[in-house]
Amino acid sequence: MGSQRRRVHLAYDGAAYSGWQVQPDVVTVQGTLEAALERACGVPVRVTASGRTDAGVHALCQVAHFDDPTGGDPERLRRRLLALLPPDVRVTGLCATSEGFHARHDAVEKTYFYQLHLVAEAGGARAIQAALTPHRVRTFHAVPGNLDVSAMRRAARVLEGRHDFAALSKVMDPARGTVRTLRRVRVLRIPGGLRIFATGDGFLYGMVRLLAGLLVEVGRGRRTPEQVGPWLARAERVQCPPSLPARALFLWRVRYARHAEAPPRLLS
Amino acid sequence: MGSQRRRVHLAYDGAAYSGWQVQPDVVTVQGTLEAALERACGVPVRVTASGRTDAGVHALCQVAHFDDPTGGDPERLRRRLLALLPPDVRVTGLCATSEGFHARHDAVEKTYFYQLHLVAEAGGARAIQAALTPHRVRTFHAVPGNLDVSAMRRAARVLEGRHDFAALSKVMDPARGTVRTLRRVRVLRIPGGLRIFATGDGFLYGMVRLLAGLLVEVGRGRRTPEQVGPWLARAERVQCPPSLPARALFLWRVRYARHAEAPPRLLS
Repeated sequence: MGSQRRRVHLAYDGAAYSGWQVQPDVVTVQGTLEAALERACGVPVRVTASGRTDAGVHALCQVAHFDDPTGGDPERLRRRLLALLPPDVRVTGLCATSEGFHARHDAVEKTYFYQLHLVAEAGGARAIQAALTPHRVRTFHAVPGNLDVSAMRRAARVLEGRHDFAALSKVMDPARGTVRTLRRVRVLRIPGGLRIFATGDGFLYGMVRLLAGLLVEVGRGRRTPEQVGPWLARAERVQCPPSLPARALFLWRVRYARHAEAPPRLLS
Repeated sequence: MGSQRRRVHLAYDGAAYSGWQVQPDVVTVQGTLEAALERACGVPVRVTASGRTDAGVHALCQVAHFDDPTGGDPERLRRRLLALLPPDVRVTGLCATSEGFHARHDAVEKTYFYQLHLVAEAGGARAIQAALTPHRVRTFHAVPGNLDVSAMRRAARVLEGRHDFAALSKVMDPARGTVRTLRRVRVLRIPGGLRIFATGDGFLYGMVRLLAGLLVEVGRGRRTPEQVGPWLARAERVQCPPSLPARALFLWRVRYARHAEAPPRLLS
């Protein structure tokens, strides 16, 4: 029995990792998963994800593919991986897939969310972060509570659509350009906070954290929703918003058009 | 200016604490708060909460009162406490209150919730816990995913009302009896899990974790909802359900009839 393509769904806490992608001398999620796969399969296995996540960013349902050289039972491999992986990287699903499935090329849409905790603090940045409640410390960013959510939502609508997002990118990659389509940007109220959802066909490096920073600036009245369109059109990183911390950012889900979503998808 | 009564709202992660109440030779939330207050006020300050929480149990809005011997500005004291307390104990509100306010005697209703993560695992208890996703490890208990939620809800309704809950108590306290009123028991679906809410005028020691264990047994078909009433009526801890782990239990809120809820209440 030869090598067989597998699709794997992963949830991870990004705090201890230098992002997804394998790099020299640092611990990454991809490197951790490949080490576990090598132990399980006996030979090196290369994994390809839907895309990279940056250092500290979490995932609830990252999708990846690899070729299992043993061609063994996916369910047995899933259990073996759960035992081999550290508690902050979990396999939430693993299944056989068609040989043609490619986790990055076939991804048609990704959704991230960014979590804001609203505090009544009038003090400085340090006092604001000190008000974060214990169960939100690792996964929320604290902001002053008097945000104008209605203005944030108007600005979110301006960002939707096909635009050059160079102004919301940390690093340019000329080969891939800076034009992307944001299908939906939503600002949802949750108890004591906000969750900003961004769905698109692709994201530039650091884009969601800059987008969240932009919306918080609008919420605080430092920009108007009407200024966002012209500013974005200039496609320059001038008067750029602050990039918010990675710990409050989650890759939530990845959508594929041609392949059934067999493994369970979990929101945690 | 003499001593003045203060009302304080607290959120804490119970993992590192041997519960709320001060005991010799262990770290407790009350002890931690009193140590911070002593540093802030210069003299020992005794704090009284709405009730104890057990070792490992979390709180989103525990309410307590104390007398500030300095009679100083509550807002200033709140900030000072935030700086003095460890990150896993946060003051979410602190305000002046009437001298007659008593956090325990005046509490008319408390709500706890217990968090279950549903997994597709067919394996044993260890395999089931291994499937917990990283952001739920510290605050959820994993159970097999094929629970009969409708049966759990029927059993929850049986528990509502005024009953002798001796069968759902770990330790008897003859002085306080075992009759309590559960106003609402609700089983809510959340993404990939369930949250069991229990609201009552008081709870016996370990009661919510036994109640959650009972509902899980019903969900797994090991008891029927119809058996719950007669079993409870026998008021004996025979055929008792398993007590589920403390880490998934939260004291959510405490309601007072006579005193305005001035400090913010946060769900996090």
